[in-house]
Amino acid sequence: MDTTQKGDLVQLVGISHKNFILQLIEGEELHTHRGIIAHDDLIGKQWGSQVFSHTGAPFYILQPAMGDLITDTRRTTQILYPKDIGFILMNMGIGPGQHIVEAGTGSGAMTTAIAHAVGPQGHVTTYEIREEVINLARKNLTLLGMQERVTFKHRNVIEGFDENNVIALFMDIPKPESCIPQVKHSLISGGFFGCIVPTANQVIQLLTVLRKEGFAFVEVCELMLRYYKPVVQRFRPADRMVAHTGFLVFARSIIPSEDIEKFENK
Amino acid sequence: MDTTQKGDLVQLVGISHKNFILQLIEGEELHTHRGIIAHDDLIGKQWGSQVFSHTGAPFYILQPAMGDLITDTRRTTQILYPKDIGFILMNMGIGPGQHIVEAGTGSGAMTTAIAHAVGPQGHVTTYEIREEVINLARKNLTLLGMQERVTFKHRNVIEGFDENNVIALFMDIPKPESCIPQVKHSLISGGFFGCIVPTANQVIQLLTVLRKEGFAFVEVCELMLRYYKPVVQRFRPADRMVAHTGFLVFARSIIPSEDIEKFENK
Amino acid sequence: MDTTQKGDLVQLVGISHKNFILQLIEGEELHTHRGIIAHDDLIGKQWGSQVFSHTGAPFYILQPAMGDLITDTRRTTQILYPKDIGFILMNMGIGPGQHIVEAGTGSGAMTTAIAHAVGPQGHVTTYEIREEVINLARKNLTLLGMQERVTFKHRNVIEGFDENNVIALFMDIPKPESCIPQVKHSLISGGFFGCIVPTANQVIQLLTVLRKEGFAFVEVCELMLRYYKPVVQRFRPADRMVAHTGFLVFARSIIPSEDIEKFENK
Amino acid sequence: MDTTQKGDLVQLVGISHKNFILQLIEGEELHTHRGIIAHDDLIGKQWGSQVFSHTGAPFYILQPAMGDLITDTRRTTQILYPKDIGFILMNMGIGPGQHIVEAGTGSGAMTTAIAHAVGPQGHVTTYEIREEVINLARKNLTLLGMQERVTFKHRNVIEGFDENNVIALFMDIPKPESCIPQVKHSLISGGFFGCIVPTANQVIQLLTVLRKEGFAFVEVCELMLRYYKPVVQRFRPADRMVAHTGFLVFARSIIPSEDIEKFENK
Repeated sequence: MDTTQKGDLVQLVGISHKNFILQLIEGEELHTHRGIIAHDDLIGKQWGSQVFSHTGAPFYILQPAMGDLITDTRRTTQILYPKDIGFILMNMGIGPGQHIVEAGTGSGAMTTAIAHAVGPQGHVTTYEIREEVINLARKNLTLLGMQERVTFKHRNVIEGFDENNVIALFMDIPKPESCIPQVKHSLISGGFFGCIVPTANQVIQLLTVLRKEGFAFVEVCELMLRYYKPVVQRFRPADRMVAHTGFLVFARSIIPSEDIEKFENK
Repeated sequence: MDTTQKGDLVQLVGISHKNFILQLIEGEELHTHRGIIAHDDLIGKQWGSQVFSHTGAPFYILQPAMGDLITDTRRTTQILYPKDIGFILMNMGIGPGQHIVEAGTGSGAMTTAIAHAVGPQGHVTTYEIREEVINLARKNLTLLGMQERVTFKHRNVIEGFDENNVIALFMDIPKPESCIPQVKHSLISGGFFGCIVPTANQVIQLLTVLRKEGFAFVEVCELMLRYYKPVVQRFRPADRMVAHTGFLVFARSIIPSEDIEKFENK
Repeated sequence: MDTTQKGDLVQLVGISHKNFILQLIEGEELHTHRGIIAHDDLIGKQWGSQVFSHTGAPFYILQPAMGDLITDTRRTTQILYPKDIGFILMNMGIGPGQHIVEAGTGSGAMTTAIAHAVGPQGHVTTYEIREEVINLARKNLTLLGMQERVTFKHRNVIEGFDENNVIALFMDIPKPESCIPQVKHSLISGGFFGCIVPTANQVIQLLTVLRKEGFAFVEVCELMLRYYKPVVQRFRPADRMVAHTGFLVFARSIIPSEDIEKFENK
Repeated sequence: MDTTQKGDLVQLVGISHKNFILQLIEGEELHTHRGIIAHDDLIGKQWGSQVFSHTGAPFYILQPAMGDLITDTRRTTQILYPKDIGFILMNMGIGPGQHIVEAGTGSGAMTTAIAHAVGPQGHVTTYEIREEVINLARKNLTLLGMQERVTFKHRNVIEGFDENNVIALFMDIPKPESCIPQVKHSLISGGFFGCIVPTANQVIQLLTVLRKEGFAFVEVCELMLRYYKPVVQRFRPADRMVAHTGFLVFARSIIPSEDIEKFENK
């Protein structure tokens, strides 16, 4: 379909890349700092065309990408960045039809990305300790039409996960090192563990526990994303960049052997 | 299922992370530099457990992740890295059920990742100029059981794409700047264009053509991945890293307006 | 001397690292957003001790380092960063007793660093096209007591340099690619050429000209500096960083040979 | 002087950047894998010109830069890289005429760089625990004609430094965190402390001790150096790079105050 329909999620991009993501609902209005736009005026437009606010400010109307949806998520917490999410999905083999467990729903950015990746035949179970945060994440998922792929559980995962034989479990919580036995119990043998932590201290604590609890093939890494100024005559990197979003830690649940240390990357 | 079955794709990881990916077929053998392993001895094993070659060399048997499958791809050409692929999928909004077009099949690493991401309801059409390369990619996809999601076309894309109203088109070919009108013609208005090029000269050429041919919201970036040594007492970055895999270029097909320059990121 | 003296250059560092560099002159006052400090109250203080403004705001009084002096330089132009300057000095072999030529004085940050490195027996000749910029640089050098080591010349270097047999020439001007024959003429055979340019386009132009004009052993690089938060319990990289200050280009003036291409790094 | 003289240090650079640094001594020979070169044939040559081995292999004869001298140092230990050395010198304000103290001579790479920077009127005192390493470093310094600027001391610095009121002290030893009170005692109030350590664990230990022992204005950082392929038509970063040489830690010796935490960068 090359024109926008009632119910579509659209992205409006204004001058200097200020953007809005909204669902088109008859009769509603979007209020921006550059004027008001009636949703009715956005329905039936060609994707990629220009629309205008009541003050004449121009916007482009576009299909939102997963990266945009995540970055736009209404949030109460630090969210994961697309660069990290994409790599986590690849490294943990997450794809259509799988049932994935997440600890630390937060605003639902990663939940959204996993729900998108597993598709309508897959499922995500996500645990979160703060009830208000769950409500926000549920709203975000509903807006994207993916609420049926997600089960929200209001629980501190130190009390354990209900799921067993899980193929992949991702964790973004304050003290992941305290819940590794619970992760081990929930994962299928060979299963994928992934985690993001902000500090080197936490990586060190995690490494200690992972080894003790029967994980191997541990990998720790970080991704640095640098944008460039897309100017033909003066092509050069941007002046500033994000220096750190977190350390990514990956491991596999295995049946320990005596010679396991020989398999470690050092 | 927590044990390996006939027909499963498995990953064997030996000491110092040397690894093999294979499909379990009764009666076959894997020959490694550390001895021979009969497939029959690998069927019915618990995932994450240890197995041994005829010389007694130990291996762990694991479920392969998408990242591993891609890195393992038998290749005749430079392949895309998981760090780049994950980010490209996120940024171009690629997910279950979509029909995506690719130019430059190569060994099929990106084709594999897209086919995995779009799932059994989605489809990939991929163009390639070298026939022998198509055959290799087809074998790789068949091994992964995803051959029915992919249509291979033996053609130089300078002659154009057959598909119209495509939501996302990714290009990894030697002279992408020469095929941008063809891309424009194939993409739906608003659609996602993505590309990887190794040199700054090519980025500059692409930027010139993209602007002329009705693309906007151009983004150029690069991802740097740094691994750490996962050693508790001596946590530190690895000594060496890959310094460059390519510049990623993203853009949207739009209906041009006179004020389009104001929308550019500078 | 472990106490401050009349005439000393001192650095006052306030809360959240706001800092001031000044020369102690009897009877003068420093006006800060956190109150006034009489220079007389700063004379005879122990280095590394705390001093207070008239409102009671605390400051530490420290010996300024070269990096601080350069970063503090009153400027009308973009200045070089200490990370780049340190590497340039090392790579071009700049040290005590040498006579170095600079094109593009700017605010005198690099001039200062070179003048410091060559010491009282060395000399810097620096060319600049804008007269008001020269005056500012001269003031900065005078404040640091190094004015006698520096000769300022008000000229566009496209008209050539007066000096011959120069061992090292550094350039930070808008179009360095247009002055390479002039550089060649000024440098001693084997001499060091260094340059900083912001864009990839300029690097490409420079590479073209350098080869044509009898330079070899060309190196192009960039330095990325990432700070960490120095917090014991939460050691981690800073959130943001400078992504790009410039591409550094180095080359040697040589007597060309037919096989020169074989010596290039590719 | 634009021709080489007896006694000069020269750098011979062969094809693919293989290079040799030597002092020209009448009657001696240099044996390379590409043939023999008599020193006598290298005396009186124009700098930047080509010379040949007895097998006809070409070399360029160049003035060596400090960065080359350091990288070439005959070594028994890991050496500091020019990128780090340049930044350390800038950040610690090291320049002509100063007396600097170093702990951990190693092969003398940093000793050489400091001795070069302080010039003939300055001095370096360097401590080292391994006698054979001192001998190697002394040979390296003598070759460069800077042996009179350096005092070598064979001692574990845990026993303390002899020098007082030192303006800058640099440390590259296995357990710097165990010697901080000794550093404090040796430095002048306000003086500069610098250190390089390979692991995050060591940075964390250092941060703990530095705070306790009366240091402030602590900075931790790392420098990443990326080279580019200097090819006009295909300008791009090199394929691989050094990912980590060490964490740089800088601090100032101060007279502690109760509100010192407010001055910290967090």
